[in-house]
Amino acid sequence: MRLGLLYSGGKDSTLAALFLSEFYDVTLTTAHFGVTDDWHHARETAEALGFPFERLQLDPGVAEEAVARIREDGFPRNGIQLVHQHALERLAAEEFDAIADGTRRDDRVPTVSRAQAQSLEDRHGVDYIAPLSGFGRQAVDRLVESTLEVTAGPSETITRADYEAELRAIIADEEGTEAIVEYFPDHEQTHVTGVRRALE
Amino acid sequence: MRLGLLYSGGKDSTLAALFLSEFYDVTLTTAHFGVTDDWHHARETAEALGFPFERLQLDPGVAEEAVARIREDGFPRNGIQLVHQHALERLAAEEFDAIADGTRRDDRVPTVSRAQAQSLEDRHGVDYIAPLSGFGRQAVDRLVESTLEVTAGPSETITRADYEAELRAIIADEEGTEAIVEYFPDHEQTHVTGVRRALE
Repeated sequence: MRLGLLYSGGKDSTLAALFLSEFYDVTLTTAHFGVTDDWHHARETAEALGFPFERLQLDPGVAEEAVARIREDGFPRNGIQLVHQHALERLAAEEFDAIADGTRRDDRVPTVSRAQAQSLEDRHGVDYIAPLSGFGRQAVDRLVESTLEVTAGPSETITRADYEAELRAIIADEEGTEAIVEYFPDHEQTHVTGVRRALE
Repeated sequence: MRLGLLYSGGKDSTLAALFLSEFYDVTLTTAHFGVTDDWHHARETAEALGFPFERLQLDPGVAEEAVARIREDGFPRNGIQLVHQHALERLAAEEFDAIADGTRRDDRVPTVSRAQAQSLEDRHGVDYIAPLSGFGRQAVDRLVESTLEVTAGPSETITRADYEAELRAIIADEEGTEAIVEYFPDHEQTHVTGVRRALE
């Protein structure tokens, strides 16, 4: 079964890939607006892990809408949620039997409710899978420690690749980097550089 | 990391075992009240799959409480939920780093809320993991079809082993088998007999 996984190069989506690869033919899919070239980082990690990689072009209008929402709110949650749902809709329209993302049990954003999942599945004829949604933060951290080689740090210093980085780039371009710190406080990102142990 | 998985010999908990075995040292643990010897079936499946197996003794008082609840309600949901929570508490008190069950996204019972999961983890110092909670019914069915050898049928004809079978046995013993059909209508159970393909 062909599965497309929304992939950022971070630890959550990388763990999700390793779990799913036991049962699915996983393609790591990085959704982006074409604002930056950061998707290259995700491709590098995908290649290091030995997974096929694809880019998924998002609608730039949704980036504008998300940035406007983040400015209005003063925090990124709703804007990111908006883009994540758009990315899942785009991914579901591709030629996959199943789609997935790396959302965890304790994530506040993005979240996909049971009703949203069912709606995605019914409208597109795919399975939507959130393989980490039954794992808490500590369980994920322990698995990452035993499995992945990771670089971690504040969002603006990490070379990971996803639509969130592009939203930050748009805001930085229009309002300066100070605005990013204001809207995305204490935001830690991770970038996976390899797999620590051979998986059976 | 040592993980104890609540195991019935059915398709859901077997799939959960296969997923988790990628990252954890999984012990299949069948919780039972000592009412029947049905746990033997789970042990047979565990041996066929090559997993370590343990029995987990539950409190017979909880079985009585659950049966009383099922009689009062006229349906099994709350009684089963009661036993499942008790089984997780017992499992969390064992010597595991993590505990898990086979609950799926679309299950109405048993369910473990995010708050219940966090409480289990905090009180017992373990991770609680529900690896199938991000999988819908169709996704599970497709994985089962491609991965497991399964016998399926009405609850009363399937040789699977879990506390639910014991609750039915108690009710049948006290009220006759007609009572089971009344309380557990259209209940389909599965029993895994093997793995269809070699897992990587």
